[in-house]
Amino acid sequence: MTTQMIILNGGSSSGKSGIVRCLQAVLPDPWLAFGCDAFIDAMPARMQASDEGIVFAADGEVNVGADFRELESAWMDGVAAMARAGARVIIDDVFLGGAVSQQRWQKALGGLAALWVGVRCESAVAAGRELARGDRVHGMAASQADVVHEGVFYDVEVDTTHTESLLCARTIAAHVS
Amino acid sequence: MTTQMIILNGGSSSGKSGIVRCLQAVLPDPWLAFGCDAFIDAMPARMQASDEGIVFAADGEVNVGADFRELESAWMDGVAAMARAGARVIIDDVFLGGAVSQQRWQKALGGLAALWVGVRCESAVAAGRELARGDRVHGMAASQADVVHEGVFYDVEVDTTHTESLLCARTIAAHVS
Amino acid sequence: MTTQMIILNGGSSSGKSGIVRCLQAVLPDPWLAFGCDAFIDAMPARMQASDEGIVFAADGEVNVGADFRELESAWMDGVAAMARAGARVIIDDVFLGGAVSQQRWQKALGGLAALWVGVRCESAVAAGRELARGDRVHGMAASQADVVHEGVFYDVEVDTTHTESLLCARTIAAHVS
Amino acid sequence: MTTQMIILNGGSSSGKSGIVRCLQAVLPDPWLAFGCDAFIDAMPARMQASDEGIVFAADGEVNVGADFRELESAWMDGVAAMARAGARVIIDDVFLGGAVSQQRWQKALGGLAALWVGVRCESAVAAGRELARGDRVHGMAASQADVVHEGVFYDVEVDTTHTESLLCARTIAAHVS
Repeated sequence: MTTQMIILNGGSSSGKSGIVRCLQAVLPDPWLAFGCDAFIDAMPARMQASDEGIVFAADGEVNVGADFRELESAWMDGVAAMARAGARVIIDDVFLGGAVSQQRWQKALGGLAALWVGVRCESAVAAGRELARGDRVHGMAASQADVVHEGVFYDVEVDTTHTESLLCARTIAAHVS
Repeated sequence: MTTQMIILNGGSSSGKSGIVRCLQAVLPDPWLAFGCDAFIDAMPARMQASDEGIVFAADGEVNVGADFRELESAWMDGVAAMARAGARVIIDDVFLGGAVSQQRWQKALGGLAALWVGVRCESAVAAGRELARGDRVHGMAASQADVVHEGVFYDVEVDTTHTESLLCARTIAAHVS
Repeated sequence: MTTQMIILNGGSSSGKSGIVRCLQAVLPDPWLAFGCDAFIDAMPARMQASDEGIVFAADGEVNVGADFRELESAWMDGVAAMARAGARVIIDDVFLGGAVSQQRWQKALGGLAALWVGVRCESAVAAGRELARGDRVHGMAASQADVVHEGVFYDVEVDTTHTESLLCARTIAAHVS
Repeated sequence: MTTQMIILNGGSSSGKSGIVRCLQAVLPDPWLAFGCDAFIDAMPARMQASDEGIVFAADGEVNVGADFRELESAWMDGVAAMARAGARVIIDDVFLGGAVSQQRWQKALGGLAALWVGVRCESAVAAGRELARGDRVHGMAASQADVVHEGVFYDVEVDTTHTESLLCARTIAAHVS
């Protein structure tokens, strides 16, 4: 069965975006890539610092509210519709709710052929990369490193702690049918 | 009938993005905003300079190929599905094909209640703003200023030549039901 | 006497950056452009939210501390040295201290031939543009619009309320000798 | 003797910027950071694609002209003046001319106490990271990886091929006096 969607899940600063760009480069067909960052950018600015929307606390904790969930649900349905309409789609997301987050995607995907990818990175290494990026609240990497994988199943897992993005992308691409 | 989508069309540097951010601020409900720029960013890098994808010529001319059209069609279907799933969606686009571009959106929208908005700006003023932005190929603003509106119908039109983004947004918001 | 530096002062969202890019385009010689934003980016991330560095309050108030002033003083000396070494330099700054801020620059400039430019914008219009930009704390434009000009003298003043960046740049360029 | 400047040299995508941000975080005093990217951004847009300025060829080759050299020389003098005025300054640069580029900095620095740092990365690894970044012309990393170090002397060298930015920064920080 031809893979219609690739869904990457990993904590902040685990290296998802770099892997996505490499995947787009190594996969022979053109794949569209969307991420939770782009979804957040699409929200009104006032929701990006509101209890109803999303709040990035100073310690790296992230909390989302009712409006966020409602829009996210519609966004997931729309992304699934793009795949059903023939676009190959890569998603990178942070499953703050672990297995519950994965179930949200499964509900939206219905019978679409999805490849589930876990992107791991040792907490201390991710925290160092967060410092090196300089554009993220310090503490997100460490607080998300493990919790986002709890109860989540994968078709393939990669670990960026000691493996470059391009090699991770090649491992994932080998599972795309 | 409740407005489900707002679609802004205008040439490069006509001021669409600023109006969109103001619309998100003045409209009481949360609206998601997506634009053709975000769609282009979602494509593989190699398509952003290829005849099959999209080419930005040095004189400001923009041409798109078959792969672009195929992915764009699926993207439009997906955006429409988001609106059908309950998200209010604002789109900003550049109708390079004028009426033909509008028909592409109409096909994707089906029976969704859309508000069509024309964003105009005098060619010379848009060209000056293109220079002031500094992040666009020089010539796009002038070459797109008029052609994108050919044969396109609107529910409301705004002109940023002498009117600020926030006032344009308020005019548009008054047409949202 | 040949102009060696152009120093623009104006509140947040008054349109300084756009004028600077237009100035670089219309002036026949190559001019380097540096701004207070670039200086802030050059500071350690921890100073960008510290009492010793710079604090952007939620209401748009901006306060700077001792470490900021010390580094800023050295930065001003360095920029003046670039001009003395033969580079033409455009600075855009926000004189939070009005006349006192101008005196800091005068001390660094020594005998350099500087053109002082005031960039004004009606408070309400600047606040609307701040909303349209979407990347600034709301309230900065209004709180800075007038105070930054208090006691400051200029060789030329422009007002972006009803005048495009490119026209403002041409007015300024006519004063460059 | 107290270190007044830290100068990092390495090819494109060797990891300089990440190390700089980590250095600013681990060094107890506040250090200002400037890079050749910021210098290029300060130039008029028209110089960023001109034989007199700087040209990024499609194959990753980079060439600079007479106007670039003239402004760069003044910029180096200005940066040195900042350090002389008391600011601690970190520079990240790409020594396209190897030893000749280092001599340009030495001339500007005069008697300032500088720490020279070589940032190495295996060519193939840097090329992969270039792909993962997605914002650089492909080929720059490979073409610059070795040539920028030719004839250059260092006080300390780090290699990001198998070492994280934060560890590299700690190694460098240990040499700062």
